[in-house]
Amino acid sequence: MLKRLGFVAGGLMVVVVALGHAVMSVPKGEAPAYTADGSLMAPAHYREWVYLSSGIDMAYTASQETEHHVFDNTFVNPISYRAFLATGRWQDGTTIVLEVRGGESPVSINKRGSTQSVKVDAEEFHVKDKGKWSFYRLVMGTNSAKLLPVGAGCQACHAAHGAVDETFVQFYPTLLPVAKAKGTVSEMYLKEGQTSK
Amino acid sequence: MLKRLGFVAGGLMVVVVALGHAVMSVPKGEAPAYTADGSLMAPAHYREWVYLSSGIDMAYTASQETEHHVFDNTFVNPISYRAFLATGRWQDGTTIVLEVRGGESPVSINKRGSTQSVKVDAEEFHVKDKGKWSFYRLVMGTNSAKLLPVGAGCQACHAAHGAVDETFVQFYPTLLPVAKAKGTVSEMYLKEGQTSK
Repeated sequence: MLKRLGFVAGGLMVVVVALGHAVMSVPKGEAPAYTADGSLMAPAHYREWVYLSSGIDMAYTASQETEHHVFDNTFVNPISYRAFLATGRWQDGTTIVLEVRGGESPVSINKRGSTQSVKVDAEEFHVKDKGKWSFYRLVMGTNSAKLLPVGAGCQACHAAHGAVDETFVQFYPTLLPVAKAKGTVSEMYLKEGQTSK
Repeated sequence: MLKRLGFVAGGLMVVVVALGHAVMSVPKGEAPAYTADGSLMAPAHYREWVYLSSGIDMAYTASQETEHHVFDNTFVNPISYRAFLATGRWQDGTTIVLEVRGGESPVSINKRGSTQSVKVDAEEFHVKDKGKWSFYRLVMGTNSAKLLPVGAGCQACHAAHGAVDETFVQFYPTLLPVAKAKGTVSEMYLKEGQTSK
């Protein structure tokens, strides 16, 4: 643990001053890394990164309710979170993690609603590298995540509807007010109107 | 930010070796602090602590479903999380945060299920200090949290049904397998049986 901490502290020594804000460069332990075939090496400690939000049973069409519930948890690497708080923007080297778990009930003394399953059903990574966003999906049971083709639809939908820089900041309650204050929300999002209370 | 980091790194210099595991003492920035009248000073940066889990519409009795949805998000200070991973136990100076936000729908392009409100409806803190757990509730609009009387019921219910040391580890999917592997789950929890899949 001490070794890991020393490592992170070392990475923080490089300070990049941009747009008048002190923005840290993304240290090696948080920065995206790839295998020889272009897969993303899944970040091992994302559960110790910064939590953005959770949704339940989210869908982009108003389909029928089902009995099976699904939680989406999202996380981001810490340095990029702090840079967003300062600037309302995602810096290069940002990784946003989507973790999918089942909703369960009843569990122990909880009799209503849903709590989260120990089992992880899927992990996806949205990575900004050299100014460009890409999506990767974990190959379950391995440590690597395959690049999703642009035609998979994630990219087009995020680019069209993401509140900030192709990302769904409209669903991240600690970041949406920052983006509004910094004036970094997209025109498309402002036109679509419906915002979180 | 650099100042804060230096501060955290300084706190980590003190290493306590207990039960054969290297357990870090809780650094000042994470340790519980109190006002003169015994209120807890609410931790300012708990959203950058380690996320434990979220539930939605949780209740300990099977009452009717309502139209108003409620998310419970839980966080813990990072050093105590890492110590739990190593030992299956909560060390002194641990703070578990419960943050309550509304569930909203539809929001932006999400048409189904619920996403989380920008507005925080409540914050509670479960603090282990000098071997004893206490509950505090944030006085909204302030930075301090009032001690909840033991008679409020939280304490009795957590002591009776908490899977580990008066805490609901049964709802924390990354920690329950650790507690099972380390043999630190309570007998009461094992008797109550129903566990997360």
